[in-house]
Amino acid sequence: MQPEEAWSRLAALGFGGDDVETLFAHFDDAERRGKLGHGHARIEWLETQELDPVATPVKASALPGFDFWKSRGSLGYLVLAEICAELAEAEPWPVRVVAADAFPTGHLGYWVRWLADAGLVAALTASSPARLPHPDGGEPLVGTTPLAIGLPNPAGEPIVVDVSMGAVTYGDVIRGAARPEELVPFGGEQAYKAFALAVGLEGLISSFVGDGYGIVLVAAKPEFDGFAAELRERAAGLRLPGDS
Amino acid sequence: MQPEEAWSRLAALGFGGDDVETLFAHFDDAERRGKLGHGHARIEWLETQELDPVATPVKASALPGFDFWKSRGSLGYLVLAEICAELAEAEPWPVRVVAADAFPTGHLGYWVRWLADAGLVAALTASSPARLPHPDGGEPLVGTTPLAIGLPNPAGEPIVVDVSMGAVTYGDVIRGAARPEELVPFGGEQAYKAFALAVGLEGLISSFVGDGYGIVLVAAKPEFDGFAAELRERAAGLRLPGDS
Repeated sequence: MQPEEAWSRLAALGFGGDDVETLFAHFDDAERRGKLGHGHARIEWLETQELDPVATPVKASALPGFDFWKSRGSLGYLVLAEICAELAEAEPWPVRVVAADAFPTGHLGYWVRWLADAGLVAALTASSPARLPHPDGGEPLVGTTPLAIGLPNPAGEPIVVDVSMGAVTYGDVIRGAARPEELVPFGGEQAYKAFALAVGLEGLISSFVGDGYGIVLVAAKPEFDGFAAELRERAAGLRLPGDS
Repeated sequence: MQPEEAWSRLAALGFGGDDVETLFAHFDDAERRGKLGHGHARIEWLETQELDPVATPVKASALPGFDFWKSRGSLGYLVLAEICAELAEAEPWPVRVVAADAFPTGHLGYWVRWLADAGLVAALTASSPARLPHPDGGEPLVGTTPLAIGLPNPAGEPIVVDVSMGAVTYGDVIRGAARPEELVPFGGEQAYKAFALAVGLEGLISSFVGDGYGIVLVAAKPEFDGFAAELRERAAGLRLPGDS
């Protein structure tokens, strides 16, 4: 899909210009990084969904060290874009936990890279429909529940971790690049580890968000910001998470 | 090792009665759960370390939503015991992030179970010496950097996730149950995922703690606490993380 087509199809769904730009930037970044399940294919998927394109998220509460955002029916991408823009603008100190009923939120590395580029360290996880069965089998019990962590690097490229607990992504399944039965916790013989992480992260999100899907984000202006540069030096050219 | 012997060998290292009790409780819990690398074998290991048995941790700063503890040379187990006791006593609201230069901290499931038993949801990660090489090989670059998440359950047993990013534990290596070359990121062909999680979590900790090893903990009185019971129902008897 060419940018012009993507842009006009998003606009045809009823989104305003800023939201079209936000959504296009996210899908296009995924496409360029080879995360095709989160790329342009998602525009076709959005066209099949019931959407409220004029809904806007709101910060429903701001407490010491904690913000809660409500999507009010807007897409999760747009909720996270508001959250990231605000955190990047006014650096959280000493640390901020943010929760929201945001869904869907795409590839989480995009959001923590945004924050890392603004000099913030951040960890972000998101829940989604149950896709992963227990390693012993049965119906899907938990979502792929990715964990993304962005590490800023004042001396060069940040490190951007973005790990789904699934062996393949649901996006890969919906675009036909993986079979549904491949969507199990990653790790082979040790798949119980990825399953456990998905359970724990989904439960953590649920503690703040309740039923339905959402996100939990922890972001801070780092007290120490030398880790990414120091690890890059020790890794001596080996590819590190998030490198293209 | 019998409890009496464990107790007297810890006392012989110079620890006071309360600290002996704290350390013994941790090692004995590990032993009973079959986490032998964190069990009684650690007492022998402590006997080989330079220790300051009368050092005590201190909460060096208490900011909105964030506490920083300094070990001042005390064992990480004792730092985490102080942190957990304080959180369990005065429930954090709306959420608390806690960082400390605590090391070693044993099996992290123990600490988040403590908090879950007190009705708190918590996520805890800890850094340690570099043991895991890059999936493409080379020298160890990051620690096994476990992530533990405790989910309270007012209706029954909590869920306690405790996942090391290593295919085996360093404890297993030091007690001879695994070979050093088995200490790689878990996941087989997808070991890059566990490696990435170890990198991200270690970088997150480093952002708060700087050089040296430490912990980051996020704890909250959950707004919603039905997840553990609801998942247990859907899992219909399948073993969930932390079950014995």
